Amino acid sequence: MKLFVTSILCLATVGAMAQEIKEDFKPSTKNQPGQEYPMVNSQGYARFRINAPEAKAVNVSLGLGGQRGGTDLVKGEDGFWTGTTSTPMDEGFHYYHLTIDGGVFNDPGAKNYYGSCRWESGIEIPAKDEEFYALRKDIPHGKVQQILVWSESTQSYHPSYVYTPAGYDQSTEKYPVLYLQHGWGEDETAWMNQGHANLIMDNLIADGKIKPFIIVCTYGMTNDVKFGQMGKVDFITPIQTFMLEDLIPYVDKNFRTYGDKEHRAMAGLSMGGMETHQITLNHPEVFSRYALLSGGIYTPAELKNEKPALIFLSCGSKESPDRINKAVDDLKAAGYNVVGHVSEGTAHEFLTWRRALYQLAQILFK
Amino acid sequence: MKLFVTSILCLATVGAMAQEIKEDFKPSTKNQPGQEYPMVNSQGYARFRINAPEAKAVNVSLGLGGQRGGTDLVKGEDGFWTGTTSTPMDEGFHYYHLTIDGGVFNDPGAKNYYGSCRWESGIEIPAKDEEFYALRKDIPHGKVQQILVWSESTQSYHPSYVYTPAGYDQSTEKYPVLYLQHGWGEDETAWMNQGHANLIMDNLIADGKIKPFIIVCTYGMTNDVKFGQMGKVDFITPIQTFMLEDLIPYVDKNFRTYGDKEHRAMAGLSMGGMETHQITLNHPEVFSRYALLSGGIYTPAELKNEKPALIFLSCGSKESPDRINKAVDDLKAAGYNVVGHVSEGTAHEFLTWRRALYQLAQILFK
Repeated sequence: MKLFVTSILCLATVGAMAQEIKEDFKPSTKNQPGQEYPMVNSQGYARFRINAPEAKAVNVSLGLGGQRGGTDLVKGEDGFWTGTTSTPMDEGFHYYHLTIDGGVFNDPGAKNYYGSCRWESGIEIPAKDEEFYALRKDIPHGKVQQILVWSESTQSYHPSYVYTPAGYDQSTEKYPVLYLQHGWGEDETAWMNQGHANLIMDNLIADGKIKPFIIVCTYGMTNDVKFGQMGKVDFITPIQTFMLEDLIPYVDKNFRTYGDKEHRAMAGLSMGGMETHQITLNHPEVFSRYALLSGGIYTPAELKNEKPALIFLSCGSKESPDRINKAVDDLKAAGYNVVGHVSEGTAHEFLTWRRALYQLAQILFK
Repeated sequence: MKLFVTSILCLATVGAMAQEIKEDFKPSTKNQPGQEYPMVNSQGYARFRINAPEAKAVNVSLGLGGQRGGTDLVKGEDGFWTGTTSTPMDEGFHYYHLTIDGGVFNDPGAKNYYGSCRWESGIEIPAKDEEFYALRKDIPHGKVQQILVWSESTQSYHPSYVYTPAGYDQSTEKYPVLYLQHGWGEDETAWMNQGHANLIMDNLIADGKIKPFIIVCTYGMTNDVKFGQMGKVDFITPIQTFMLEDLIPYVDKNFRTYGDKEHRAMAGLSMGGMETHQITLNHPEVFSRYALLSGGIYTPAELKNEKPALIFLSCGSKESPDRINKAVDDLKAAGYNVVGHVSEGTAHEFLTWRRALYQLAQILFK
């Protein structure tokens, strides 16, 4: 038995630069109330525990090789399946699910977040800089409200979320607006639930780092587009039509906005960046500030004679930072006001975008 | 084989007054986007389909004997487990979950709703009167916003939801406020997500049936109380302290309320009714209108000399309508302004409470 344990440890050492796993696991902050599992330790390992006494196999879609892959759980005598990721996870938020006897289900211990076109389980690995999106005591907090916007083009309501900063209700001033789009497989809830956009704003405003602005998040209408079809399907026209004909007029009518191009920005992550890219190029008369978060680049050629007040390009260091940095250099050389941002140690996930929003917000309407 | 099938059918006939099941199944309106299952037919039967090719047993917690019990699914050659409830379900919203190989999981086809102290799957059996909580086109819609209320007594934020009627932002008038509590196992999201309180209000206001008022929903702080301990544990003081010291002052400061007893009501369903009952009796100087929805009764003796402007008592016809009707009679005889309501054909579930709110809202601040 002793020998067997040693050989397992050796394998782990070779396979994943194993370190001793610290037994300081705590429940993930994304757990359902009162749920102990999943847990996360100070090194970023995640541990799972699932009750399914009669199951043949339980796998977690997180762990192997870091971000993605899978962790096979092992059944104990109590009927609970447990397991720990073989390597530490990247800091930040991760979607995941269970595969139980060949079917996909959620972890009953975790809260659910809309991603991959389904309500997935979510887990949070505490980040060293997590304070910037923390729910802080003793500062004023803005409000997140759901609005129901009727679309003539789709003949349906589009539920959308609006963040208004603390003090908005008491003020008589006008506010700039950022239209902030989610990625493929997500919806209008992503930036508040997974991204904590409201808390990022609350903290920046409380610390005097920015002047308040409104954020509007709506569904990007892209979840019917398959990855292989992106080049073939026009997924821009539907959301562009809704935004220009319904959403922006609704927001400018129902909130105290400036209602002009100078005080209107568009940003999006991943596929939301592709939307932002195309819609801002199609309608430079509507937006003055453009931001692509892990969502591509702008080139001087495609911008033609348009000089937006700000271009912001970002991604995680585990994505394609060279491409972002080169695009920033090219745009700078061509005389554009452009800012780049690379999130250290993160991939195509929400900590990358929380950090990008934190940076973007500080320069957006300056 | 033929004989076997016949004998099953006979059992079903005896056990559940079987009728021919109409093959007009449609996806439940509570499904995740694009998901076909679970389905519901025009008679109220529910049909489930779960992918778990290697599972030994899959059970749905709905179906047998009507409301509760269970439906065992049967595996097909494609690896999908399917089954239909043995009887029609009650109209309205039901929580449910799957038991797969001994563990409890959610249906990946359904959206999740917080009930039974967990995010459960939800399914909706269309009700004959569903129009009163429908999302209607061409009427103005109010907003549901999340506020973060700091509690000195718990040293934590209590996320709460506030419904403000359409026109609130453009108006300068003051509004009455209803504090509306969920039941045991639920949280502050229940009345909007499961109860459609916002849509009920939108429709009543659009039809000119009521003058607009604000609704506030907060967490009742009861989910740590076990059923058997209800008589032994003081679950009133924590929520009463939070409401009186933190929530009501926050709402009166941050929204255009009258801020007086005359324009402040409290209502709750089930355990939220028990909270309402006790808090209104403890603090008649704070509320003028009391409503218990499947949440007990008031007696003239316990009201002492207090004469609230309105008492409202309700339940489903499958609960204890006699007790409600008798309490209403007793209170009437003692000179109280009391209204009773019994929801036809429903039990201790959300359609009962949607209907109660619909009735209550029409008389609440008259």
